[in-house]
Amino acid sequence: MGISLGVNQYGKAEVRMVHVDRSGPRHRITDVTVTSQLRGDFSATHETGDNSAVIATDTQKNTVYALARLGGVGAVEDFALRVARHFVDGFEQVTGARQEVEEHGWERIVTSEAGEHDHAFSRGSGETRTTVVTKTGAEEIVISGVSGLVVLKSTGSEFHGFPDVPYTSLVETDDRILATAVTARWRYLGVDVDWDKAHGSVRQILLDRFALTHSLSLQQTLYAMGRGVLEAHPEIAEIRFSMPNKHHFLVDLSTWGLDNPNEVWYAADRPYGLIEAAVVQDDVPPADAAWAGIAGFV
Amino acid sequence: MGISLGVNQYGKAEVRMVHVDRSGPRHRITDVTVTSQLRGDFSATHETGDNSAVIATDTQKNTVYALARLGGVGAVEDFALRVARHFVDGFEQVTGARQEVEEHGWERIVTSEAGEHDHAFSRGSGETRTTVVTKTGAEEIVISGVSGLVVLKSTGSEFHGFPDVPYTSLVETDDRILATAVTARWRYLGVDVDWDKAHGSVRQILLDRFALTHSLSLQQTLYAMGRGVLEAHPEIAEIRFSMPNKHHFLVDLSTWGLDNPNEVWYAADRPYGLIEAAVVQDDVPPADAAWAGIAGFV
Amino acid sequence: MGISLGVNQYGKAEVRMVHVDRSGPRHRITDVTVTSQLRGDFSATHETGDNSAVIATDTQKNTVYALARLGGVGAVEDFALRVARHFVDGFEQVTGARQEVEEHGWERIVTSEAGEHDHAFSRGSGETRTTVVTKTGAEEIVISGVSGLVVLKSTGSEFHGFPDVPYTSLVETDDRILATAVTARWRYLGVDVDWDKAHGSVRQILLDRFALTHSLSLQQTLYAMGRGVLEAHPEIAEIRFSMPNKHHFLVDLSTWGLDNPNEVWYAADRPYGLIEAAVVQDDVPPADAAWAGIAGFV
Amino acid sequence: MGISLGVNQYGKAEVRMVHVDRSGPRHRITDVTVTSQLRGDFSATHETGDNSAVIATDTQKNTVYALARLGGVGAVEDFALRVARHFVDGFEQVTGARQEVEEHGWERIVTSEAGEHDHAFSRGSGETRTTVVTKTGAEEIVISGVSGLVVLKSTGSEFHGFPDVPYTSLVETDDRILATAVTARWRYLGVDVDWDKAHGSVRQILLDRFALTHSLSLQQTLYAMGRGVLEAHPEIAEIRFSMPNKHHFLVDLSTWGLDNPNEVWYAADRPYGLIEAAVVQDDVPPADAAWAGIAGFV
Repeated sequence: MGISLGVNQYGKAEVRMVHVDRSGPRHRITDVTVTSQLRGDFSATHETGDNSAVIATDTQKNTVYALARLGGVGAVEDFALRVARHFVDGFEQVTGARQEVEEHGWERIVTSEAGEHDHAFSRGSGETRTTVVTKTGAEEIVISGVSGLVVLKSTGSEFHGFPDVPYTSLVETDDRILATAVTARWRYLGVDVDWDKAHGSVRQILLDRFALTHSLSLQQTLYAMGRGVLEAHPEIAEIRFSMPNKHHFLVDLSTWGLDNPNEVWYAADRPYGLIEAAVVQDDVPPADAAWAGIAGFV
Repeated sequence: MGISLGVNQYGKAEVRMVHVDRSGPRHRITDVTVTSQLRGDFSATHETGDNSAVIATDTQKNTVYALARLGGVGAVEDFALRVARHFVDGFEQVTGARQEVEEHGWERIVTSEAGEHDHAFSRGSGETRTTVVTKTGAEEIVISGVSGLVVLKSTGSEFHGFPDVPYTSLVETDDRILATAVTARWRYLGVDVDWDKAHGSVRQILLDRFALTHSLSLQQTLYAMGRGVLEAHPEIAEIRFSMPNKHHFLVDLSTWGLDNPNEVWYAADRPYGLIEAAVVQDDVPPADAAWAGIAGFV
Repeated sequence: MGISLGVNQYGKAEVRMVHVDRSGPRHRITDVTVTSQLRGDFSATHETGDNSAVIATDTQKNTVYALARLGGVGAVEDFALRVARHFVDGFEQVTGARQEVEEHGWERIVTSEAGEHDHAFSRGSGETRTTVVTKTGAEEIVISGVSGLVVLKSTGSEFHGFPDVPYTSLVETDDRILATAVTARWRYLGVDVDWDKAHGSVRQILLDRFALTHSLSLQQTLYAMGRGVLEAHPEIAEIRFSMPNKHHFLVDLSTWGLDNPNEVWYAADRPYGLIEAAVVQDDVPPADAAWAGIAGFV
Repeated sequence: MGISLGVNQYGKAEVRMVHVDRSGPRHRITDVTVTSQLRGDFSATHETGDNSAVIATDTQKNTVYALARLGGVGAVEDFALRVARHFVDGFEQVTGARQEVEEHGWERIVTSEAGEHDHAFSRGSGETRTTVVTKTGAEEIVISGVSGLVVLKSTGSEFHGFPDVPYTSLVETDDRILATAVTARWRYLGVDVDWDKAHGSVRQILLDRFALTHSLSLQQTLYAMGRGVLEAHPEIAEIRFSMPNKHHFLVDLSTWGLDNPNEVWYAADRPYGLIEAAVVQDDVPPADAAWAGIAGFV
């Protein structure tokens, strides 16, 4: 029986960077967390500790900062592609790269005296814009997304008709709170995309479909969201969702003679339902390897 | 030598509640985390396990839900006062109560087809509105605040002139990023206050002063924020801040022939500076007991 | 162009359960977090909201509790297999299941008066024992592991010989702190395994190899750990690691005339190196689908 | 109406430091998180941005590292006192200091081949040893403690006899799981103490009393723990506890014909009971100011 090194990658995770565009008096800031990973034949360092091929993770970090200085950050997809190309095209031993970028939103502070401020900002919601670029030789796959997009509907959601199998005690309802934290990732076909425009459009469709779909199950809402995105964006091959059903339980106050017409709810932490699904264009080749290692996707 | 029970309180922490105002088709939601604590002579349960005076923490939780059903939530200060009065005025053994409420913000989803939605919402920023009501017999002290208000200025901040004592290596700067997560708590004089209006005004002053103060130290910015609040709000006796200096370090790229004119920054996690101070109206009696147990305040 | 539902699964995540074995006066507790997910043809609920095939996630939660009552928990692998078989073998529409269990360790309290206590426990380290059982029809794949196993060597670790490519500034060292939080997952061949014994043995080998390998790179240490496991356990097809390089930086005190012979270190949070690799038995078929959705593995 | 600066302090929070004692082949490591804060007349920086009195927080960080190099770390109480004295005794403008140290435990790895290893360690439980030293001029107050000491009893705990006030629904029980995460802080009288010995003794008494007290309420258990400490340690003036009642709910399986004789429990996250109390020596003067700003204590 032989034993070998299998799949592997290495790099620097969670490089925190804020870029300030000071080209005019009205600053623009881009706040990102970058994880750079390289792939190739790194068996020597594993087997003998020979590091002659190992571009240090510290170097990967420095490269992220240097490329930001040289060309700014711009759309996170463009930036991730630039970093990936720097490594894959520049070093023989690097046959592939995986570059993940999360962008954290900031909003301009609006002062009561002077309106939108030129260089003062407040942090936006916990939502992040994400991208994972996987470059294998010349092939480049871009999977972008959102995470932490927390949404809630206070009505317009039902759940019934499920089978009464053993250990079922859930009561059917035709009016519940539906709440989730949307993690969505979508794979683009190609890299000739207006990333910012596409991101904004997808995000709006997700919100529209969540809000406007009368929900019979979180699965149905999810599918409507995904279908809406693919219908509007033929440049997107597939979209995958991981959506917790953040349960809100109606508080039973009847013991004390109080009704509760869907007004007072207990917001539970754990456990939670978890719905995961892909919505895909037919006749598009899969890209399973690019999805590997993305948490929370089947 | 004798040994006795000292100060004590007990209750239910982090009761998660979402209240839906369905009085019209346009729902309003209030999302709060309530911590209810009672004070009084509870020596029996400590010393002998006699629980005849102990209003169960489960009962405190139920009471939070029931009072929300009976009168809605409204301003968190009003709700905390209602819960405190329920217990202190209603039960002989309860001589005091501490009610803490955190409110989590939601924004109405704006759909591309139909504008602001009646019953679909997305979670706002990580900022929370807070209140701690301490009721001791008839005395009621309200300390309200914000936490998680993360702000950043990309210029307009200096730091120099500090003494060169042993172990000093920090370099003086006349242009740095200033970033912090504001936790502010302010104590009202009395309870006859338009809570929502006061909260909105204080919050705006904090943002204004942060944005508009040319900063020579985070302390100076803090003090300007506090002074601004007290000048505009005579009904506020004091305001206390806990403000981390979320360091952003300019990345040195000179090794590779690159300048970095304050464009590319490393956002550090730990350690961080920590500035804590109160700004107070002169001639107002203190209320130290009400501040006890509020994390992060001197 | 058509649009379809792609891969999907759904279930209940993070069911927190403590099982007490009270068969004798000396209680044994098993503390687990279970995530149950089902697979099959659930297109109806996605496309039309028809839930007639959807075994409710609440039912999945109840089933976890009921099966624990009926047969105890035992080894987490056995428990996950039992839950998976309950669903896949019991319901026509369920063609597959993914059951993930994390076990949290407790230690018996040792009192000064009476030694090991029968029913009092203290929580152990943050390490968890994990398993992911993927059942597809009759096929059952068990991937077990540890996470949160934080280890550190204060010497016996070098790192040098890496190439001086652009943006490299890291200094070579022949004595550093090596620290990591081991997440390891290993795939068993078959299910006829003494799970507890195998787990204990693998864990000890991981610790032995970490401690006893003179490290020239974290990669080398990782590979030694994996090789050691596979050499001793032919029933294990492969083992995958995700190991952050938790950097400890020697503090430079020379400005103040102090040396620092590897005594005083700054423990950094972010960024961190991240080394991920598989060590595999040759000639064993892969099982990529079972690895999908496991965070942090290439 | 005048407005003034009130109480204030500033410093560097969460300085992460690992000290390696390499005086022999058998290394010893001390892993601490230090928060250094200074007090004095710092009105100038607040009011005008004049920083001439402000010992930079970066300098405070460097001082922590330098003092560790000069004298090691040793008991965290001694280290905190050394840092406090360095600042208060060394600089006129510093009239007080608050030094907080958390120590994170490590255990020596035991290898199967060679027993306890000289320089390889694994992280212990999430429990931390804490100290807060408050020095005001010559006065030095030491409040030490433990946090994150998670304990559970699977029987030997009852809760009944509480009053049936409105909104009470809790069912009385004579056998429940009692679980909590002990945060305890105790104030020493004076600084001439064998800190390590005292810490070990207090910790063991806490475990003993938790395990051996037949509990009629968490309050009773808490009080027994505190009383045990004070009886054995006359050098301790008072001890304060913040103890969440980490609820474990018995799962009701009767719907499906299954009993559940206290075997299968749901471990809940939120809300939780919260019991906070001090146990004090009579006739000892209080030290309320030293307790200010310690989270979770009344």
